[in-house]
Amino acid sequence: MLTTRLDLDRIRAARRVIDPIFLDTPLYQCDALGRRLGCTVSIKLETANPVRSFKGRGTELVASLLTGQGRTAAVCASAGNLGQALGWSGHRRGLDVTVVASRRAPAAKLGRIRALGAALELVDGDFEQARERAASIAQQRRVRLIEDSRDIETCEGAATIGLELASADSSLDTVLIALGGGAMATGVGYVLKTLSPDVQVICVQPLGAPAMTRSWHERRVITTDSTDTIADGVAGRYPIPAVLNDLLQVADDAVLVREASIIEGMRMLLEHAGLVVEPSAALGIAAVLEDPDRFAGRHVVTVICGSNVDLDAYHRWVRR
Amino acid sequence: MLTTRLDLDRIRAARRVIDPIFLDTPLYQCDALGRRLGCTVSIKLETANPVRSFKGRGTELVASLLTGQGRTAAVCASAGNLGQALGWSGHRRGLDVTVVASRRAPAAKLGRIRALGAALELVDGDFEQARERAASIAQQRRVRLIEDSRDIETCEGAATIGLELASADSSLDTVLIALGGGAMATGVGYVLKTLSPDVQVICVQPLGAPAMTRSWHERRVITTDSTDTIADGVAGRYPIPAVLNDLLQVADDAVLVREASIIEGMRMLLEHAGLVVEPSAALGIAAVLEDPDRFAGRHVVTVICGSNVDLDAYHRWVRR
Repeated sequence: MLTTRLDLDRIRAARRVIDPIFLDTPLYQCDALGRRLGCTVSIKLETANPVRSFKGRGTELVASLLTGQGRTAAVCASAGNLGQALGWSGHRRGLDVTVVASRRAPAAKLGRIRALGAALELVDGDFEQARERAASIAQQRRVRLIEDSRDIETCEGAATIGLELASADSSLDTVLIALGGGAMATGVGYVLKTLSPDVQVICVQPLGAPAMTRSWHERRVITTDSTDTIADGVAGRYPIPAVLNDLLQVADDAVLVREASIIEGMRMLLEHAGLVVEPSAALGIAAVLEDPDRFAGRHVVTVICGSNVDLDAYHRWVRR
Repeated sequence: MLTTRLDLDRIRAARRVIDPIFLDTPLYQCDALGRRLGCTVSIKLETANPVRSFKGRGTELVASLLTGQGRTAAVCASAGNLGQALGWSGHRRGLDVTVVASRRAPAAKLGRIRALGAALELVDGDFEQARERAASIAQQRRVRLIEDSRDIETCEGAATIGLELASADSSLDTVLIALGGGAMATGVGYVLKTLSPDVQVICVQPLGAPAMTRSWHERRVITTDSTDTIADGVAGRYPIPAVLNDLLQVADDAVLVREASIIEGMRMLLEHAGLVVEPSAALGIAAVLEDPDRFAGRHVVTVICGSNVDLDAYHRWVRR
């Protein structure tokens, strides 16, 4: 019996709150990728929507909750994608959204947050400094702080991906999920462990930002002093205890991958699937590349979680 | 009263035959593109499926019909996308598929046709020579010839895109459709003219392959001696009279665009929507670029019809 913070009925109900533009995303087998990787590869594509990532599923719930409570403003820290999504969901509901991000976040993400009408505050330092700043803004201005992965709506929104995977008429063996703060991994993992317990849930994180993976293996929160990865979307250092507790129950494994594998994963997704993805979205392919025997002959699905990438950097990475 | 070859009830019924993987594709507003183009731009994304184009909608109908008739083989000419789609649909139903294509078709398309298990025959010359060769193979081997745009299933399959556009809760003013043989334009156009007659249907073809557009304007079949465009997917020279007759009834306009605009369209779809597309899929954006006043402030949807592109050529095109 799972004792996570998540709830299946609420997740099912979430489908009625989330704008359909974020739901029922493409799920399809990509034979060209599968041939190169020695397994059957299905793609769950979360980038064909106005914010180009899966985060809209969660922010739709958050924004709907806030307006239901009569609130008019919200603030969040973001590596870039949550901010866009909260900007989108908030804008449609008349919420004033403030996003705090690192000055080092990809310019494309920052530009799109501004374009969505959110107020953007930049901090020196990394995502964790942005989190601190967002918390202090929330306190000063008495505005609701939205915390990715900690706020259950962000996990349960992402969990609707799990409903779609579980209901697919398919022979899935393994789901590969990018691991950052843990909202997507706990959400999707919870639904699969509940509805399709035979499907393996494997979380993938960069070696350069291993805090949550190390925490999962040691079953206690491990923080790191710094991160060093191009996968900006998953580069946190301070795992949230409640999220780790959930993740311990729903993940079958958590693995770390090298930067070179992430880059090769991005390249393969471009060459064999025609997809431009941000580094975090290539983590699943990277995991297969690093351990092909583990996945040989299996049917894996990888969630393509975002495509917000600076093109100059992208071209530098994928060019051979 | 429209007197086309198409039938709305059959098109609605087609949704039950077509594998769901090709249906209900993403339709979403892309603000970043809209800002650059001075209008509201929605994307209908037909590339997130195993064959990376909309053609599966039609080949599902064709292959289902053939197996229903007890046939075991089919042959088609293809610029590259129909061949992949027929290969996919045929393979799942145990049909032997032969595809005839020009040796000059993109290597990516040819490689994927072979990978799908179809027999591939290459001809010197262009798509029209491939059509002749496919017809003679069909006669010699007494195998069913599948003809894109002439076979009503290819039009009515594509027409299911129109159902999805018509049922979207939206303020669409204009649909921009790549025009080649005419299957997609007549299919989508027919449904919209029937269900959403206020939506403008504008077909877009390259200046370097203008046969169908010229035919539409002169209301009679005009052929050309050659084509000269990177948009290989729409480079036909001999319009089919029955298709032209349908198109005359359902299209509001047909416009020609320059190669430079197609390339700029591909570049904008990459930069502002994160989409790698083949040249034919950029025709709609090219049309807006060439006549911004016509679309200013309007809500246009462009059908992103395919992403099968040779990456070397693609990088050459989009590089500034």
